[in-house]
Amino acid sequence: MTPYESLQQRSREVAGFNSMASLLGWDQETYMPPKAGAYRAEQMGQLAGLTHRLSTAPEVGDWIKSCEDHLPPCADEEETAVRAANVREWRRDYDRATRLPGRLVEELARTTSLSREAWMEARRESNFAGFAPWLEKILALVREQAEAWGYNTCAYDGLLEGYEPGARVAELNPVFADLQKALTPLLPRLQKITGVVDPARLEGNYPIAGQQALNWRVAAAMGFDFEAGRIDTTVHPFCTEMGPRDCRLTTRYHEADFTSSLFGVMHEAGHGLYTQGLPVEHFGTPLGTFLSLGIHESQSRLWENQVGRSPEFWRHWYPIVREQFPALDGLPLEEFWLLVNRVKPSHIRVEADEATYNLHIVLRYEIEQRLVSGDLAVADLPEAWNARFEELFQIPVPDDARGCLQDTHWSLGLIGYFPTYTLGTLNAAQLFAAALRQVPGLEADLQQANYAPLLRWLQDNIHRHGRRYSPGELIQRATGEPLRATYFLDYLKAKYGLT
Amino acid sequence: MTPYESLQQRSREVAGFNSMASLLGWDQETYMPPKAGAYRAEQMGQLAGLTHRLSTAPEVGDWIKSCEDHLPPCADEEETAVRAANVREWRRDYDRATRLPGRLVEELARTTSLSREAWMEARRESNFAGFAPWLEKILALVREQAEAWGYNTCAYDGLLEGYEPGARVAELNPVFADLQKALTPLLPRLQKITGVVDPARLEGNYPIAGQQALNWRVAAAMGFDFEAGRIDTTVHPFCTEMGPRDCRLTTRYHEADFTSSLFGVMHEAGHGLYTQGLPVEHFGTPLGTFLSLGIHESQSRLWENQVGRSPEFWRHWYPIVREQFPALDGLPLEEFWLLVNRVKPSHIRVEADEATYNLHIVLRYEIEQRLVSGDLAVADLPEAWNARFEELFQIPVPDDARGCLQDTHWSLGLIGYFPTYTLGTLNAAQLFAAALRQVPGLEADLQQANYAPLLRWLQDNIHRHGRRYSPGELIQRATGEPLRATYFLDYLKAKYGLT
Repeated sequence: MTPYESLQQRSREVAGFNSMASLLGWDQETYMPPKAGAYRAEQMGQLAGLTHRLSTAPEVGDWIKSCEDHLPPCADEEETAVRAANVREWRRDYDRATRLPGRLVEELARTTSLSREAWMEARRESNFAGFAPWLEKILALVREQAEAWGYNTCAYDGLLEGYEPGARVAELNPVFADLQKALTPLLPRLQKITGVVDPARLEGNYPIAGQQALNWRVAAAMGFDFEAGRIDTTVHPFCTEMGPRDCRLTTRYHEADFTSSLFGVMHEAGHGLYTQGLPVEHFGTPLGTFLSLGIHESQSRLWENQVGRSPEFWRHWYPIVREQFPALDGLPLEEFWLLVNRVKPSHIRVEADEATYNLHIVLRYEIEQRLVSGDLAVADLPEAWNARFEELFQIPVPDDARGCLQDTHWSLGLIGYFPTYTLGTLNAAQLFAAALRQVPGLEADLQQANYAPLLRWLQDNIHRHGRRYSPGELIQRATGEPLRATYFLDYLKAKYGLT
Repeated sequence: MTPYESLQQRSREVAGFNSMASLLGWDQETYMPPKAGAYRAEQMGQLAGLTHRLSTAPEVGDWIKSCEDHLPPCADEEETAVRAANVREWRRDYDRATRLPGRLVEELARTTSLSREAWMEARRESNFAGFAPWLEKILALVREQAEAWGYNTCAYDGLLEGYEPGARVAELNPVFADLQKALTPLLPRLQKITGVVDPARLEGNYPIAGQQALNWRVAAAMGFDFEAGRIDTTVHPFCTEMGPRDCRLTTRYHEADFTSSLFGVMHEAGHGLYTQGLPVEHFGTPLGTFLSLGIHESQSRLWENQVGRSPEFWRHWYPIVREQFPALDGLPLEEFWLLVNRVKPSHIRVEADEATYNLHIVLRYEIEQRLVSGDLAVADLPEAWNARFEELFQIPVPDDARGCLQDTHWSLGLIGYFPTYTLGTLNAAQLFAAALRQVPGLEADLQQANYAPLLRWLQDNIHRHGRRYSPGELIQRATGEPLRATYFLDYLKAKYGLT
């Protein structure tokens, strides 16, 4: 075997074991009997150890070096480009995996497992002091991580790179600043427009079987292939892949409100369509793998918001939904639409509407940077959080459980992750605008609930490329310009009839 | 690490991967989307290759040899015995795995995968000629297998050993002969007694939700731990283990007849109780593993037949079942009981009643031995099958699909497997008789649907020992004598009031 073929084989072998880990994880959340948890954790550790050994073995480094020194050209130009991109990404993965000293990996695993417990208790009791020492430890460890991985300008860049390859604080800061500056004056106007209908009007009895039927029907209309995927019920919704034709979504149901499960399914199905659109022939190699969190999230948000929260969507689906749920009798389409697009400042990020959501991220992004640089001491976090929150949202923070203790990310050592949520939002709006410009008749198609042309455009411009380009290159290629906050802001204004 | 500790660690590592394979297999039958099948097969191959390499590595042989030469005694006598038994069983597994040449393993895998396809088509068309060349090939390969494994008296012994350690033709033949000789005159009498009620009286509408509720309730009453297991729906029922506290059963439902699913669940739950009764502290080593197919099957049959088809069982459960299913109105307990104990010669093994079932096995056991020895040519199989079938059952075989083509086992290379079904039947009767003798008040307990004392006896005498003793030793220890056909025959006669 040539070094390239050896890398290909190893990469696919690791993907096979990772797919098994996905199944173990999915099963744990869906059907696993409760007493099986302890052994399942052992099995996950066993697989993680195996894939780590396989990915970081010295021969992998040798094969990559050899490909970098001399990659035999193929007769086929496309295949040559594929190989070059795969080798580039294997190098990236190998370096990131091997640059961390084993001691640091273990300490991170041990610390985050304990700090997650501490965070859960601290949040339950709204007691920041219980979590503060753990956050100190985690910050020290992720700073070490960033040093080991390396960076040019600031340690935060080194962390960001793990979630969004190529993203840099120097480029993100102006985008986030533009966004925040434009959102702040917009919010009171959106709140006023959407606040005219009483949210209690949506409350009713929506039997779960009916919700499921609707979710399935909408996901199928979006193009989700149920022969290569499924939807199950879990406490926390997610989308996971366990093979090239096996992508599973989950959702949860509230009998008093069907919209939360439906939008959740559209969101996860957006992730799922990306997964199902990755090139099967490259499965297990970088070109068959999703690109970044910001790109993944763009797919989920585009389907959930640009499609699912549009007036066109509901002009088609509302009559169908009303037939399913008599609880909606007497609620006109226009009022229903305002309710599912209601803008209102609130404390909890995961419950936020699509406009204020991004201010939650701006807050976390600013604070994370200051924590990593040491500019903000952990002890001062609640005060800094609360002050900035009130500035951004114009409402006070009642307690740390609804403030700086609400998210699990930091307790797990996931620092640099938050901005990818807003990158997803901005990518989604910019991609959707490009699709509307580029696909003739797309607006009419969407009005008729014909989602195939949109899906095809996303497949051609995003899904089929895997990790061939960086996120920045991909957005540039698909939309003709670098990422900007404008498209999202224009989308919001147009949606609510503002100019 | 000492060689013993190394063996322990390797054995647990292999068990971890085998448990993952069980989950992959369970998922494939329950929830996997259809298009995921091809990749799932690759993953199964990947795991099988990994566990084969880990189990047959030369260092494993060295560790075993070293333990055999000198196993350091422990202070604890019990621990010394445990270690000796584990080493003995590791040796057995290692020799069986390493004695087969790689070429033979691959050829068997390839041949059985193709011959299974050929068998399915041949059975569909009742065309023995389509399967005959494959059976020839498989017989040649399993003969090679037997030679590689080694045996004392006949090649069939070498095969049998793989399913029932220690079982030998020379010892089984008289038991099977006794059984057959006694059954033949008994059958017409049982058929007459149980044939007085029209089976159509049981047909009705049994909603699946009601069947599920009943199945769950009965399995829980038997002692199946639903915190460490579950029941799902599949085309073919099975029981599988994917960790020390994770045992999953499956069943299927027919709306016109609830008894098939209920007895199926009692059968699989019998397997499941054995699995849940294996010592958790030995999980992943021989002492935490089930002993043999004949012992596993004894547990399923004991619960399905000795318990589930007894008059005591139905005196308690029939009123409950009638409340669940109005379809049973007008069918008295006595008639219902005769219907679920109906004896009648039939062509298909898997649909046979508990009495005639064993004649199906006698037939296969005799024929398998002659095929392996070469005494019967493949071309003559249908004729030999049909002639012996008519002798045993007094009804002719209408076609090969309902004759020698009905079972999948031979197409998969499983030769020497069939007798373990009847061993299970005989073990069950002998064990149940011993439990009735040894546990004070057991009969009264069973009448009151208190199954805990029976389960405890089975846990103490069978489950907790894992592979500590051979099946023969285990039966001797639990019942005070070697396996005999008498207990099963006495059980049958007593059940139907014969002397």
